[in-house]
Amino acid sequence: MARKDALDCQSRRVENSFKLTRVGVTGILKPMVVRRHGRDNHLVAEIDVFVDLPSTQRGSHMSRNVEVVTEMVDESIRTRAGSLEQMAANICRELLTRHDYASFAEVRMTADYFLERRPPGGRTSLEPFKLIAKATAKRGNGLMKSIGVEVCGMTVCPCAAETARHIVLEGAPELKKCAEKIPMVSHNQRNRSTLTVEVPEQVDIEADDLIEIVESSLSSPTYGILKRKDEANVVLRAHRNPKFVEDVVRDILGKLLKKYPKLDDTVHVTVRSESEESIHKHNAFAERETTVGELRSR
Amino acid sequence: MARKDALDCQSRRVENSFKLTRVGVTGILKPMVVRRHGRDNHLVAEIDVFVDLPSTQRGSHMSRNVEVVTEMVDESIRTRAGSLEQMAANICRELLTRHDYASFAEVRMTADYFLERRPPGGRTSLEPFKLIAKATAKRGNGLMKSIGVEVCGMTVCPCAAETARHIVLEGAPELKKCAEKIPMVSHNQRNRSTLTVEVPEQVDIEADDLIEIVESSLSSPTYGILKRKDEANVVLRAHRNPKFVEDVVRDILGKLLKKYPKLDDTVHVTVRSESEESIHKHNAFAERETTVGELRSR
Amino acid sequence: MARKDALDCQSRRVENSFKLTRVGVTGILKPMVVRRHGRDNHLVAEIDVFVDLPSTQRGSHMSRNVEVVTEMVDESIRTRAGSLEQMAANICRELLTRHDYASFAEVRMTADYFLERRPPGGRTSLEPFKLIAKATAKRGNGLMKSIGVEVCGMTVCPCAAETARHIVLEGAPELKKCAEKIPMVSHNQRNRSTLTVEVPEQVDIEADDLIEIVESSLSSPTYGILKRKDEANVVLRAHRNPKFVEDVVRDILGKLLKKYPKLDDTVHVTVRSESEESIHKHNAFAERETTVGELRSR
Amino acid sequence: MARKDALDCQSRRVENSFKLTRVGVTGILKPMVVRRHGRDNHLVAEIDVFVDLPSTQRGSHMSRNVEVVTEMVDESIRTRAGSLEQMAANICRELLTRHDYASFAEVRMTADYFLERRPPGGRTSLEPFKLIAKATAKRGNGLMKSIGVEVCGMTVCPCAAETARHIVLEGAPELKKCAEKIPMVSHNQRNRSTLTVEVPEQVDIEADDLIEIVESSLSSPTYGILKRKDEANVVLRAHRNPKFVEDVVRDILGKLLKKYPKLDDTVHVTVRSESEESIHKHNAFAERETTVGELRSR
Repeated sequence: MARKDALDCQSRRVENSFKLTRVGVTGILKPMVVRRHGRDNHLVAEIDVFVDLPSTQRGSHMSRNVEVVTEMVDESIRTRAGSLEQMAANICRELLTRHDYASFAEVRMTADYFLERRPPGGRTSLEPFKLIAKATAKRGNGLMKSIGVEVCGMTVCPCAAETARHIVLEGAPELKKCAEKIPMVSHNQRNRSTLTVEVPEQVDIEADDLIEIVESSLSSPTYGILKRKDEANVVLRAHRNPKFVEDVVRDILGKLLKKYPKLDDTVHVTVRSESEESIHKHNAFAERETTVGELRSR
Repeated sequence: MARKDALDCQSRRVENSFKLTRVGVTGILKPMVVRRHGRDNHLVAEIDVFVDLPSTQRGSHMSRNVEVVTEMVDESIRTRAGSLEQMAANICRELLTRHDYASFAEVRMTADYFLERRPPGGRTSLEPFKLIAKATAKRGNGLMKSIGVEVCGMTVCPCAAETARHIVLEGAPELKKCAEKIPMVSHNQRNRSTLTVEVPEQVDIEADDLIEIVESSLSSPTYGILKRKDEANVVLRAHRNPKFVEDVVRDILGKLLKKYPKLDDTVHVTVRSESEESIHKHNAFAERETTVGELRSR
Repeated sequence: MARKDALDCQSRRVENSFKLTRVGVTGILKPMVVRRHGRDNHLVAEIDVFVDLPSTQRGSHMSRNVEVVTEMVDESIRTRAGSLEQMAANICRELLTRHDYASFAEVRMTADYFLERRPPGGRTSLEPFKLIAKATAKRGNGLMKSIGVEVCGMTVCPCAAETARHIVLEGAPELKKCAEKIPMVSHNQRNRSTLTVEVPEQVDIEADDLIEIVESSLSSPTYGILKRKDEANVVLRAHRNPKFVEDVVRDILGKLLKKYPKLDDTVHVTVRSESEESIHKHNAFAERETTVGELRSR
Repeated sequence: MARKDALDCQSRRVENSFKLTRVGVTGILKPMVVRRHGRDNHLVAEIDVFVDLPSTQRGSHMSRNVEVVTEMVDESIRTRAGSLEQMAANICRELLTRHDYASFAEVRMTADYFLERRPPGGRTSLEPFKLIAKATAKRGNGLMKSIGVEVCGMTVCPCAAETARHIVLEGAPELKKCAEKIPMVSHNQRNRSTLTVEVPEQVDIEADDLIEIVESSLSSPTYGILKRKDEANVVLRAHRNPKFVEDVVRDILGKLLKKYPKLDDTVHVTVRSESEESIHKHNAFAERETTVGELRSR
């Protein structure tokens, strides 16, 4: 329709301009339902969506982004997407359909997520984790999805544990003969670690499995409810399993390779671990950004 | 001037409306200099300022708030206010002058602040703290200023320490005879505690002293630089001084009463302590909101 | 049991200490379901719970807090609490039962919340709001619950609109004869406003109604999806309805009194409105903290 | 010294492990002074520092990172680094010296920063901006530094402006003959835009110039103090200069090329612009990640 075109200032041609890598909307909040293994998960997702923009077109049609998100999310109420990253993939594909000028689309989503956990001897409760999903599509080139998780747990410092033991034994030599029965004292703290794996759409990676890989790589998981004895046991177990952030990242990498022996060499992996140090006001941090192929050669 | 009045829609009369408790601007960012004990402190303050508004006037003159802040801060470059709370007080007084319809004014300011600290045996460095200043004025009724500090340090849990020791000794009875030489193992974590004291303008309370009261009430201060042995000693000292958040708040209250024996019974005091638990994903919290008079009767 | 008592260091007597106003846990994250008008709302709530502590007892039993929250939330999966604030009230009551030494309990909860909205001529979508619930109980003295909402919408500045029109008409006097057909140009921005009403437990206030009161008091609601013409109409309507933050707060107060004519004079009401000014880097803010009785006398 | 080695668990050999991309500390807060054009700038910087770690070594020596930061910052009090990015470069170089096992080092710094600004006809005041500095070094391969700025300003939507004008003129055809004198009405909002340029250490780029490029690419800068008439003039000027986030990014890119015609083709440039939409609860976003060489071919 002529009049509509006249007002479509996004579609106007610009001369001598620049293409843009990502144009879109950030911070959309949407409730959604994903069904995994027969269980409905009600999530509140924060969503960013982007497409690229050629140098010749003034603007991207932003409202189409939110339309696509809304339609896909509404459809999920009926059809139940299988995962947050599958939802991201579906939105991503549809973005390329609606933005015919785009050659690239990207969708990022995060959501709080809950799994049952039980401390040894203690009571089951729902523990919070975070899902971090992404999908990217290049027109004519398939679709990549990224499955990511954030886990909050506990690290105990190996270095302070050894040095403190050394100082204690120097001061009380009579303890030396039963040294290995004496518990290590060290600083320990809240740690947040993330693991993200980017695979082609058809490859299936379960976020719950990634959460387990990360959680089991910390000095100890943490729990909402700990009665007196359970609390002490969590503390003792964690101190028998001290970990630097470096150790956490490497253990996650090792477990990932073992759990998924068939992953293609080209698969991207990112692992980060950050300890909110109890003896410092700053954090300790370790990271590996790599591919499975590089990992296999260490 | 007639034309100006015509456009002054803030000053317009409204009928049958409501008075407002606070009207103003929030989130002003300003660099400033305060001089304490001959030392210049360059601060970047985040500032909120408010006055009340009678039910008969449509709007408050918002730009006057920022004018007052800017003038007072600029003047401080020349004259050096003695403290952040003195700056807040000066702005507060001037707000009542410029907003002649107001009967109440309030100014809130926070700023990062640095003091030299040295761990036992270690190296001096600048540690970050936070200043939290406030001033309130009722027209014709004097001015109250509030001096507040936030300190980040470390707490060690007394309960897990005792239970863990009990479990260890049950499992290794031969350790019982030298039990008190065996270091406690427990969970420990980053803690943030605040202390705020509200006094009449002429009463002098030093933020540095409040910081020392809070810092010394934790299981241990924390430090930017800790070499291996210093780190272990900080850990051992903290474990010999385990503290619940409840203990932290009470120790701060006790030290405050002792440090300022002459404070008036009407002085308001707020103490909060929050431990970012290493064994949980949530925090432990304790608070006392009170007056010095109530505190003296516990 | 003797051994258990020996390790219950929280229950230990302390001499000469201070009572505490609030002791508890903050930042618990829990998924829950509340059923309103036959519709299930799946919420992810962030929860803080506190009780007071007498001066004679060393610590509060923190794990009981999380037990109560977990049990009440689990029960809601079966029994469906009627609202977030009812859930807060249930938890609050149970806290006093489990902490027999406490005389006061408080529960705070916030959660993202979604309602269907349709811009004039446009498409329905789910818009995000925030629920802010609270409950407090004094032993033997009944229970107060607080129903609160946060709404994100749009404000247009009345002052800039008038002054800009004045400047435009001065520069083009020929426009004066059709001045009122010329749209106002002004600055406009994202605004976040909150309304909280604290009532006895048995009084019923619907959060959806509070959201509607706040949303209708802004220059315009905002929407996820706006096609070109809908967008322009929202903009034009908002500019015909310019509002200071002061206007927003007063309109909310007026609508609240009208909607709930039978509220008791003692009911507490708090209204805040904050505009993230487009012409400044700081925000404009207005607030009224009051009782319904005071409001009735303005 | 033998005993010290025994406790150096970071230096221990690990078998069959993985190298790490970044190991270090995040969130160090430090006051510092940089001198530019004879003017001292007192900054509070938030600092992250990292080195890589070979697969054969268990841990990085974290305390060396903070030692380097502290020494370099202390030295700056005496010698005055010329810029935040120069400070980052100095720290980066020293990290490689102290961590002899590392082949890569990275330093990131951000700080609030203030420049004088005066609205047309108005009063000068200090406006807040943000500096975003980075330095990376590969051993034996020189040092790259990144100069970045974040600017908060205002965007006016071109699309709503045109459509709203169209609707107004349809409804009042008598306005058509003086259409171009009628101000555009549109939605406008707070916008945050960033520009980052990564260059070899010896290339000089002035952060103040980057700030000016970004600020002048928005619909209008924003100001702390605006009296009634200044405010209306800022609003009118901004509405005569409507900008999509896409326009903002492209204008920044164009001005950058023009300002620095001699930049090498390999220089990395990142531009982002995010508008906190007043008609939506989500943001509009545009980005270009590129090299100067690619930009020259659009």
